[in-house]
Amino acid sequence: MCQLLGMNANTPTDVMFSFAGLATRADEHGDGFGIGFFEDKGLRLFVDHYGAQKSPVAELVKGYPIKSGNVIAHIRKATQGRVALENTHPFVRELWGRYWVFAHNGDLKGFAPRLHGAFRPVGDTDSEHAFCWLMQELAKAHASVPGIDELSTTLRELLPQPAACGTFNMLLSNGQALWAHASTHLHWLVREHPFRAATLADEDLSVDFAALTSPSDRVAVVATEPLTAGESWTAMARGELRVFENGAPRAG
Amino acid sequence: MCQLLGMNANTPTDVMFSFAGLATRADEHGDGFGIGFFEDKGLRLFVDHYGAQKSPVAELVKGYPIKSGNVIAHIRKATQGRVALENTHPFVRELWGRYWVFAHNGDLKGFAPRLHGAFRPVGDTDSEHAFCWLMQELAKAHASVPGIDELSTTLRELLPQPAACGTFNMLLSNGQALWAHASTHLHWLVREHPFRAATLADEDLSVDFAALTSPSDRVAVVATEPLTAGESWTAMARGELRVFENGAPRAG
Repeated sequence: MCQLLGMNANTPTDVMFSFAGLATRADEHGDGFGIGFFEDKGLRLFVDHYGAQKSPVAELVKGYPIKSGNVIAHIRKATQGRVALENTHPFVRELWGRYWVFAHNGDLKGFAPRLHGAFRPVGDTDSEHAFCWLMQELAKAHASVPGIDELSTTLRELLPQPAACGTFNMLLSNGQALWAHASTHLHWLVREHPFRAATLADEDLSVDFAALTSPSDRVAVVATEPLTAGESWTAMARGELRVFENGAPRAG
Repeated sequence: MCQLLGMNANTPTDVMFSFAGLATRADEHGDGFGIGFFEDKGLRLFVDHYGAQKSPVAELVKGYPIKSGNVIAHIRKATQGRVALENTHPFVRELWGRYWVFAHNGDLKGFAPRLHGAFRPVGDTDSEHAFCWLMQELAKAHASVPGIDELSTTLRELLPQPAACGTFNMLLSNGQALWAHASTHLHWLVREHPFRAATLADEDLSVDFAALTSPSDRVAVVATEPLTAGESWTAMARGELRVFENGAPRAG
């Protein structure tokens, strides 16, 4: 299964990623990975269609101290679309002078709405098509960048359409907030002071939060499966959209 | 001065970059660098607003065997706009299902056309504003992705407008061709078999073409200043637009 990982922090936070597990199982999840880091409005996007085992990009990301408030990562197992750089998540588009980053886990059957706006897929995945449609509909719904609650309202109207066509676990961020929509598997957790010096880890991916030491630091983590035992991860319901801002879920 | 470097090859080619010179003079050119590599329609973009000396991204790029047919690199000395990730060239947008990569050297005074289309700057540089305007005008001029000659014709009509407002040395690529426009400093060269095992180098940047060994390999290189002595670099004229495809300048 593809792995999604999202983070939203109240302070740009040093987070160290590791692909240790992946590196030993590149045959299974060898179809690419990508990770996007917002630094204020700026974006750093690392994508590779090689498995993490042989990718120098994975090596870079692994040792890279990232100061980011919003992160979206994706480990891809190709189910639709060729294995190619242009099919590697996350995808990025610009709208209203902001970059938007999108990653999707799941298959969509027959979701091919007409794209008549300014966004077209470069690759041939159902995911990028759905993302372009989402950007097109957001652009139609608002003349300029709306507030987070308005965006959430629009997304709540839009997301049932792709979700009705299959599995639509997805993460979306514009650097201000992180939106998570679940169909099947998506879990979230807020970590705040006092932090246990724990490493969140599953077999693929670990995140070291040791650098989170200030009492005011807070970070929300969203992942396909809980990354730790002994912490209270909340499973998202089918069709649920949750918005994270300043390291916590936003009420409403 | 900012450095521009572009490459267009007839075969995806292993090219190794080095920032050796830069690394020793990070104080002078410490305002960021970026490099975009097309791999077919896919794009790998590495940007950093740290100088190459302390950037782990520069370290990655340095050792990375890049199989790319079109490359645009930029080393930035901030003249307008804050030093920030979102102000780091090259810039990328999607149009007609293709990524477009743009880098600019020079200042534009008072070029602030209204942006009424689908492209908005994320940062605050004159360069990104000009790029968004260029994308907007291309989108208006063609309903879908036109041929290279049609694009060149449209660009020849558009480019005098920003160029009239200052210095507009620029590189643009959509992964199929490389467009170079000169105001002041831009030089080009075609390297083909038999290749001398030369390293193209100036004080900032070197490119090792040793991997170009096949008789059919051909690569066009565009750079702010000639990177080698003893080869016939052609200086571009003020206002000249040149298109490179399959490793050679396109006639017409």
